[in-house]
Amino acid sequence: MTRDERIWTAALVVIGDEILSGRTQDRNVAQIAAWLNVQGIRLAEVRVVGDREDAIVEAVNQLRARNDYLFTTGGIGPTHDDITVDAIAAALGVEVVHHPQAMAVLEAYYATRGGLTEARARMARVPAGAGLIENRVSGAPGIRIGNVFIMAGVPHITAGMLDALTGTLPGGRPVVSKSIGCWVAESEVADLLRTTEKAHPGVAIGSYPFFREGRTGANFVARSPNEAVVDACLAELTAALVADGRAVTAGGI
Amino acid sequence: MTRDERIWTAALVVIGDEILSGRTQDRNVAQIAAWLNVQGIRLAEVRVVGDREDAIVEAVNQLRARNDYLFTTGGIGPTHDDITVDAIAAALGVEVVHHPQAMAVLEAYYATRGGLTEARARMARVPAGAGLIENRVSGAPGIRIGNVFIMAGVPHITAGMLDALTGTLPGGRPVVSKSIGCWVAESEVADLLRTTEKAHPGVAIGSYPFFREGRTGANFVARSPNEAVVDACLAELTAALVADGRAVTAGGI
Repeated sequence: MTRDERIWTAALVVIGDEILSGRTQDRNVAQIAAWLNVQGIRLAEVRVVGDREDAIVEAVNQLRARNDYLFTTGGIGPTHDDITVDAIAAALGVEVVHHPQAMAVLEAYYATRGGLTEARARMARVPAGAGLIENRVSGAPGIRIGNVFIMAGVPHITAGMLDALTGTLPGGRPVVSKSIGCWVAESEVADLLRTTEKAHPGVAIGSYPFFREGRTGANFVARSPNEAVVDACLAELTAALVADGRAVTAGGI
Repeated sequence: MTRDERIWTAALVVIGDEILSGRTQDRNVAQIAAWLNVQGIRLAEVRVVGDREDAIVEAVNQLRARNDYLFTTGGIGPTHDDITVDAIAAALGVEVVHHPQAMAVLEAYYATRGGLTEARARMARVPAGAGLIENRVSGAPGIRIGNVFIMAGVPHITAGMLDALTGTLPGGRPVVSKSIGCWVAESEVADLLRTTEKAHPGVAIGSYPFFREGRTGANFVARSPNEAVVDACLAELTAALVADGRAVTAGGI
């Protein structure tokens, strides 16, 4: 296996009662997944846990051990329900300290916004030994300790933190993902999909049915780090569908 | 503890490479969470796993053991990447069989849609001993075995299956959740939130900041199975904010 062929994985722990109560629609799973793909890192698993230390500790310790990277979102604000930093420090068995650079960032940010109160200074608390992730959107920075990346819960703030990390994490070849679409019930082409996937080792074909404009269709997505193999697989699938009298839309419907 | 006071919990396993790749935005977490609240059941944890049997088995076996109910979404269609039924049968240590009633449902559904092919009959496969969950939207039914509920991945099909289950699952008192909104930075009221929560045992206050129209605001959500306690908590919080010269919007902003 060459260096390129090693698969790098990440896990994500989404922290927040508001996700588990249905109050808030999560956007970070899809956002972080797409960003990781570009870094050549595969999102292998996600957990959503509530604002409870035991749940956060269990998820963080299980997932950081078996993935190259672990990301968390949520629970790093100034209020009593923001317990992510304390929980991750507990998971790692380290103390919580005020990070001097984070204090300086927050002092500058709040200088014109009413000053750095004790509640706001909570956002400078990090597990001992941690570094910071630049927040290009608002005040409080993200936190990195070992292979754990502690990000904001608000999606556009997380987006800014991801932007700051872009290109800095070792990864493999990005997964190439291409689609074709067809107005066909997936059940009519199930055998074709199975045999085409088997004929192209290393490619995974996903089948995603939909119902639109009163008609049944499906998109077929081929994924592999090897673009040539993806292209060959979709070319064969397209040819078979066309030979069967069906119209195929490159890129998906 | 009276029967009403027992807390009933559920877990959810979202199954699908398309969620982990970022291709598809999950909608089932929020939908199932909201539906469970009405049933008096709390969504305690969620995992998202790929189309891999080992990952599904691990998640299902960990979560069904420690929750009253376990739901899964995704992976029950007719194609090769639909492995949920096989994985859950493996998790439970039972065989996979064709369910006679599911075969009848599918035969009727496909009678005018090209007939029941072998691929389509895959959707009648269930872990041995399972019952069915009515699908009011399309053909293939959901599956119930023990405390495990196997649902569709397509959100509007899942919605129909949830509708069929409404009122059939034992639960506790639904959690009452009420909000107030205020144009304030949550960091300015962090102490007030903490002391108000402490003064009302059994209530959890969540603080959810936002940035709109160029201004900073936050919604504060109080949750408890006891509505009177939620009301008292929010009344006290509102009074304190108003005494501090702030306008409060009942129901949230």
